[in-house]
Amino acid sequence: MKLLQSLCQVHAPSGNEGLMKKFLLDYINDNKHLWKSSPEIYEGDDFQDCIILKFGSPRTAVFAHIDSIGFTVRYQNQLVPIGGPDAQTGYQLVGQDNLGPIECELEVSEDHQLFYKFGRPIETGTDLVFKCEFEETEEYISSCYLDNRLGVYNVLKLAETLTDGVIVFSTWEEHGGGSVPYLAKFIYEKWKIKQALISDITWITDGVHPGKGVVISMRDRNIPRKAYIQKIIQHAHESSIDFQLEVEGSGSSDGRELQTSPYPFDWCFIGAAEDNVHSPHEKVHKHDISCMIRFYQYLMKVL
Amino acid sequence: MKLLQSLCQVHAPSGNEGLMKKFLLDYINDNKHLWKSSPEIYEGDDFQDCIILKFGSPRTAVFAHIDSIGFTVRYQNQLVPIGGPDAQTGYQLVGQDNLGPIECELEVSEDHQLFYKFGRPIETGTDLVFKCEFEETEEYISSCYLDNRLGVYNVLKLAETLTDGVIVFSTWEEHGGGSVPYLAKFIYEKWKIKQALISDITWITDGVHPGKGVVISMRDRNIPRKAYIQKIIQHAHESSIDFQLEVEGSGSSDGRELQTSPYPFDWCFIGAAEDNVHSPHEKVHKHDISCMIRFYQYLMKVL
Amino acid sequence: MKLLQSLCQVHAPSGNEGLMKKFLLDYINDNKHLWKSSPEIYEGDDFQDCIILKFGSPRTAVFAHIDSIGFTVRYQNQLVPIGGPDAQTGYQLVGQDNLGPIECELEVSEDHQLFYKFGRPIETGTDLVFKCEFEETEEYISSCYLDNRLGVYNVLKLAETLTDGVIVFSTWEEHGGGSVPYLAKFIYEKWKIKQALISDITWITDGVHPGKGVVISMRDRNIPRKAYIQKIIQHAHESSIDFQLEVEGSGSSDGRELQTSPYPFDWCFIGAAEDNVHSPHEKVHKHDISCMIRFYQYLMKVL
Repeated sequence: MKLLQSLCQVHAPSGNEGLMKKFLLDYINDNKHLWKSSPEIYEGDDFQDCIILKFGSPRTAVFAHIDSIGFTVRYQNQLVPIGGPDAQTGYQLVGQDNLGPIECELEVSEDHQLFYKFGRPIETGTDLVFKCEFEETEEYISSCYLDNRLGVYNVLKLAETLTDGVIVFSTWEEHGGGSVPYLAKFIYEKWKIKQALISDITWITDGVHPGKGVVISMRDRNIPRKAYIQKIIQHAHESSIDFQLEVEGSGSSDGRELQTSPYPFDWCFIGAAEDNVHSPHEKVHKHDISCMIRFYQYLMKVL
Repeated sequence: MKLLQSLCQVHAPSGNEGLMKKFLLDYINDNKHLWKSSPEIYEGDDFQDCIILKFGSPRTAVFAHIDSIGFTVRYQNQLVPIGGPDAQTGYQLVGQDNLGPIECELEVSEDHQLFYKFGRPIETGTDLVFKCEFEETEEYISSCYLDNRLGVYNVLKLAETLTDGVIVFSTWEEHGGGSVPYLAKFIYEKWKIKQALISDITWITDGVHPGKGVVISMRDRNIPRKAYIQKIIQHAHESSIDFQLEVEGSGSSDGRELQTSPYPFDWCFIGAAEDNVHSPHEKVHKHDISCMIRFYQYLMKVL
Repeated sequence: MKLLQSLCQVHAPSGNEGLMKKFLLDYINDNKHLWKSSPEIYEGDDFQDCIILKFGSPRTAVFAHIDSIGFTVRYQNQLVPIGGPDAQTGYQLVGQDNLGPIECELEVSEDHQLFYKFGRPIETGTDLVFKCEFEETEEYISSCYLDNRLGVYNVLKLAETLTDGVIVFSTWEEHGGGSVPYLAKFIYEKWKIKQALISDITWITDGVHPGKGVVISMRDRNIPRKAYIQKIIQHAHESSIDFQLEVEGSGSSDGRELQTSPYPFDWCFIGAAEDNVHSPHEKVHKHDISCMIRFYQYLMKVL
C-alpha cells in the first residue's frame, strides 16, 4: 500500500493535474519492464495532463480519473470549492504559492462560506487540497482522496498482468469533466473500442456495505445500457469474487461523458465503496480493494 | 391504431430499449415491401439499440425516441425514477426479473420517496414501467407512453410514402440522452444532413389546445435557429394543415443534443400535444395526430 | 466608439443572430483592406450565423459571442427570457413582428412572471431586446449589451493588426450554447489550434474593480488548465498592461463548450468587467477597454 499512500499525497486538484501526470509517467517508466506486457504510452500536448496506456489488442478501456477535489483561493481569505468537497472547520489544507509552501486551516461560516486561516495572505488562484493523513489498520485504509487514488492504484495493479486493453488516466472528473471527450474520441477512432469500465470509488449506503465486495453500479444519475451491465454481472457471478450491486438516482463519473460522447460507448462503474465521502478521512475496507483488483484482472480477460 | 397500441405495450425504459429495437426491426422488415421507397437500414453494434432508415437522397432527418420513463428497483422496496414520471400512489407497474413477471403497485410517501408494493422482493436493478391501458374514443387516444410511441408511430406512417429522408430511432431521451450525439455524427458525416425534425409529443397549456392541430415549437429550454423555424412555419401556412405555435421556457427533446452537437444542425420540434403528461393516462386528440402525420408527409417533400 | 455603439444597436438575441452576421460581414468586407493582414473568411450554411476569420499561420483562436440576452413573446402578453436578463418593470424593449416595429415596456409581476405592455398583441415567438441607450462619459461607456458587443469590438480592433491567429464569432452563448462545438471542431481539425482566448465581459465584484485593468479569469464555474492560465499571467506581467485576476465559483462562457469539446483545448477568459450586468445599463470603464484591446494585441503575438 506504499504506492497508494504516495498517490494520495500528490497535489492534483481538477485543472492542475501536472504533478500527478509526472508521478504516473515516472512510475510507469520505472515499472513497465516488470509487467507481463509492455504498453504503448500516449501522452503530450494533445492529451493535456492525461495518459493512455495501450496493451496488446484492446477490446475494453478502463478509465481512472487522477484529479481530486479541493479549494481555490479567491480574494482576501475566501475559498471557492473545486468539485464537491466535504467542508468542515478545522480541516487542514496544503498547497503552495510564490511565497512558499502553505499549510492552513479551513473555516466554514454559518452561511456556508469558505475561508482559510493562515499567517499570511495566499495568492489569488492558488489551489489547496486536504493534508494527507494516511492510516492503515487490519481491515481498513483511511486517507483523503481514496476517491480516486484507489481507482488509479487499481489500474496500476491491473497493468502488471494486462495483455489486451487500454488504461486511461483522465482529468477534471471532480469538476464537470473535460478530458474524457477527447480521450474517448482517440481510443474509439484508433482502436474501435466501445467497451469501458470506470475504475472509481462509490459510497457506503443502506444497500452497499463495507467488506462485502467490489460494487458494480447498475446506474447513478446516468443509466448505462442494461445489456452491457447484465453481461458484467454474469461475469461477476462466474468469477466467484465478492461483489455488490448498486442502484442510485444521483452521483456521476467519467461514465457520464462517455454516455454523451458522439461514440457508442457502453460503460459500467465498478469500484470499492467508501465512508466519509470527499472528506480528509475517506475509508475503504481492504477486502473490497482486494475484490476490486481481482475483478478487474478477471473481467479484462473475459469481456 | 392497432400498431400504436402495440408500440405502447413494449417494455423499453431508457437504457433498456432492446425489445423496442427488436419490435421495430421486425415491423420494418415485415412492411417495407409495401412502402413507396425501400430504405437502407442501419443498426447493430455501432448503433446500440438505435436504428437509422435512409430513403433516397435525404436532406432532412426525423428523430423519434423509442425509450420511455419508468422506475428502477433500488434496495428493499425502494424505487428510483427513470426520467421524470408522474408518480402517484396506486399506479400499476409491470416488469420482469429472474423470478418471473411482475405486476405491482406504486406507492409515494409523504416526503415523495417512491416504493413498490408486491408479494415478493424484486431484484435490485429491475426496471418497471406503467401498465398499459390503451383507450380509444371518437375524439381521443389515451394510454401510457403516447410520449413517444406516437412520435414513433408518426415516423412509421411517414415511412410508407417517404422518398427522400432519414428516420432515426433514438434512445435515452427521457433520461439525459446519449445516443443522439453518435447518430447525429453518423448522418452528418455520411449524408451531410443538417436539417432535423423532432417527432415527439408536447404539452397542452394555456396556449396549446387539444384538437387545434399539430404543434410547431418555436422554443423550449433550448432555442433553435429562428431562420429555420420561420421556414417551417411558412410551409405550415402553405400546407393548409391545422397547426399551433408553441413558446416555452422549459422542456427539452432530442433537439437539445443536436443543438450541442459538433455539427451545424438546425432542428425543430413538431408534434401533437398531450394532457396528463408522463402519467399512465396520457391523452391526445385524434385530429392532432392526423395533422401531425399529414404535416410530416408534406414537410419532408418541401423542406 | 462609433463602431461599438452601432454594434450595441444590432438586434441579435440568441438563436436569431442573422442581422449581426450581416453587420459583421459588411464591416469586415468594407475594412479588411485597411488591415495589416487580410484574413480568409469562413461563413455560410455550415457555420449557421457564425463567422471565422483566419489570419496567417494561427496558433491561437479568439472567441467572441455575437448574441445577446432578450425575451421571447409567449401567449397573450407573456414573455419568456432568453438567457438571464436582468428584468425590471419599466425597461424598454424593442423588436419587430409581421405587423411592424415594436417598442414596448417590460412588466415584472410579484411572482416574477414577465409581461409586456404594448398597444397591440405581439405575435407569438417574436423576440425582443433592450432598447439601446448608449452613453459615453470621460471615464465610462454605458449601454445594453456591452456584454458582448465590447468583446466583438475588441476582436475587430484586434483584426486591424493581427498577423497570425483565428477570430471566431459564435452564437447562442447567452442561452446554453450550440455553435462552439462545431466551430472548435473546424479550427482544430483544419489548423490544429488548441489555444483559445474568450473575448467576453465579466463582473465588477469585491475583487475586480473598475479602472484597474483588463481581467484575466483564473476560473468561473469551469476550471481551465492551470498551466495555460499561468503562462498567460506571466505574459501579462511582461506586458506592463494593467490587469486584474479573477476567481469565481459561478458564471460561464464559450470556454465551457471548449472545455467539454472532444478536442484538447486550453482556454482563458480575458475581458473588461462591467457593472449592472445584463441590464440596459451595463457600464464599463474606458481604461479597462483600452487595456483589454492592448492586451489582446500583445498576447496574440507572444502566445
